[in-house]
Amino acid sequence: MAKNFPALGTGANDFARRVEQLSNGRMQIRVHGAGELVPALEVFDAVAAGTAEMGHSASYYWRGKVAASQFFTAVPFGMTTTEMNAWLYHGGGQELWDEIYANHNLKPFAVGNTGAQMAGWFKKEINSLDDMQGLKLRLPGLAGEAMNSIGVSTVTMPGSEIFTSLQTGALDAADWVGPYNDLAFGLHQVADYYYTSAWNEPSAVLEGTINLDAWNSLPEDLQDVIREAARASNMAMISEFAFRNAQALETLVDEHGVQLRTFPEDVMAALYTSSLEAIQRQVDSDEESRRVYESYSAFQKLLRPFSDVGEYAYLKNRDNVDG
Amino acid sequence: MAKNFPALGTGANDFARRVEQLSNGRMQIRVHGAGELVPALEVFDAVAAGTAEMGHSASYYWRGKVAASQFFTAVPFGMTTTEMNAWLYHGGGQELWDEIYANHNLKPFAVGNTGAQMAGWFKKEINSLDDMQGLKLRLPGLAGEAMNSIGVSTVTMPGSEIFTSLQTGALDAADWVGPYNDLAFGLHQVADYYYTSAWNEPSAVLEGTINLDAWNSLPEDLQDVIREAARASNMAMISEFAFRNAQALETLVDEHGVQLRTFPEDVMAALYTSSLEAIQRQVDSDEESRRVYESYSAFQKLLRPFSDVGEYAYLKNRDNVDG
Repeated sequence: MAKNFPALGTGANDFARRVEQLSNGRMQIRVHGAGELVPALEVFDAVAAGTAEMGHSASYYWRGKVAASQFFTAVPFGMTTTEMNAWLYHGGGQELWDEIYANHNLKPFAVGNTGAQMAGWFKKEINSLDDMQGLKLRLPGLAGEAMNSIGVSTVTMPGSEIFTSLQTGALDAADWVGPYNDLAFGLHQVADYYYTSAWNEPSAVLEGTINLDAWNSLPEDLQDVIREAARASNMAMISEFAFRNAQALETLVDEHGVQLRTFPEDVMAALYTSSLEAIQRQVDSDEESRRVYESYSAFQKLLRPFSDVGEYAYLKNRDNVDG
Repeated sequence: MAKNFPALGTGANDFARRVEQLSNGRMQIRVHGAGELVPALEVFDAVAAGTAEMGHSASYYWRGKVAASQFFTAVPFGMTTTEMNAWLYHGGGQELWDEIYANHNLKPFAVGNTGAQMAGWFKKEINSLDDMQGLKLRLPGLAGEAMNSIGVSTVTMPGSEIFTSLQTGALDAADWVGPYNDLAFGLHQVADYYYTSAWNEPSAVLEGTINLDAWNSLPEDLQDVIREAARASNMAMISEFAFRNAQALETLVDEHGVQLRTFPEDVMAALYTSSLEAIQRQVDSDEESRRVYESYSAFQKLLRPFSDVGEYAYLKNRDNVDG
């Protein structure tokens, strides 16, 4: 991630600052932006090899190496931010993540979360499943596979190429993150319709990784510092995204006249089916993915009824009384 | 709070452990349960006077002394957990809280949040506003005032007296926290209907307080330790409540046959109006409350559109596709 990229990049600086503060200067972390020390998509290998001792990224970028890593970032129609953190901290998620990353000489931590993302930017309005056919959409991962199954043609490309690709018509649509990051890329200048919904990333965990040899050589009190700095950074980033996304959304709608839309019901229903199929294909072909998703989905099932009568019931009530 | 009371009490232990760990033993906190050193409702005065150096409670308990303290815990139809944390960390909430508490020789921190609470236990089913008339309900604070305005007769009593009061018929209904804490009190044994909705406490901040002289005498690095231990504890408690509430809800419904209900629309609409009136009365009669609520409500208004197209839009979609 570029060094000072909103939240995704500055989150690494915040985490580094916390570790330094809390270790009273015993640990100093020098933050390198993507491409400075290693390219963005080589963070995993560089930290595993010890070229860098720590990394800051998102686990689903390593899906080509470790299929199950997808489940530690975001799952289509999966867990919300609070549900995901409860799984990592209380539902066995962290233990599975530790075990799988240990095979690659890494120790992982959640160091932030984007919260619910948007479904992305579309140059034309989507009124039915038919309108999706043949669209060229930037969307990686399981969600990209789910889109392909319903007739969309997805591509994977770095965030930095989205603007130009939409502008030239190489793309008809693109998903990036949410208002804060999308405004920074100027995506509203090259697409009129902004689709809400977060079906693809109901939350997305930012990961910190530490070379496992380096981690094991740390005294227990410095391991505590890293663990708690990560937890505090997670809290900080969730709050920051909530604030900055709200500010940016106001700017996009009030100043730039962006049109907010939601996918029609037939599109959402088709994406739900094709998402479950994409997950199932991965689970069937990879034993680690099967184990992780079994834990993930059982936990989501446990948490869902309380999410529904707690947070969701409140949001519905608030909407009804003043909406 | 009783020392090992689920989450509300154990949260103090967790915070103390984090401060000890992160200060490498330079700060040791001895946790006293309610009544051991000072009674629960004297924590504010005891920490202000230095009888204790730190306290763990909820700010709305000090409403009789500092009317504005209400807004730092929970507001009827107010902000969700994520919105509230964004206000404290990014919207000027912490600064206002610091300023107001400094007048009482205290430095406050958010050290946890219960998440969305339940609306409480009712011995009989509520089918309309008429059914609420004359009910004796345990519900403190602004929400209690709002209930009084629609014909309910509210009382304030410690949580520990709720069970017996429902059993003897001294109460017809009672609000406590949510499934995790309510199950621990056995409230399902003395009332059949469990009302969801969280209208009264869409989130509730647990506060840590520090004697201001003690705070000011700390070197900067130990102030950092307390600040970050509080932030990490906030994250930890949010996750813990999500998990434990989900487990407890499953037990209440599957093993104890508890009936989940939501208030009918006329009740919710009346509560919304009477809540805004109760808030307005407080704001009109207290300058500090006016200033705090101005910041609070402006921030809620800023965050609401993104909450709606982010988290809320996702929860609706998830509900539609598999509900």
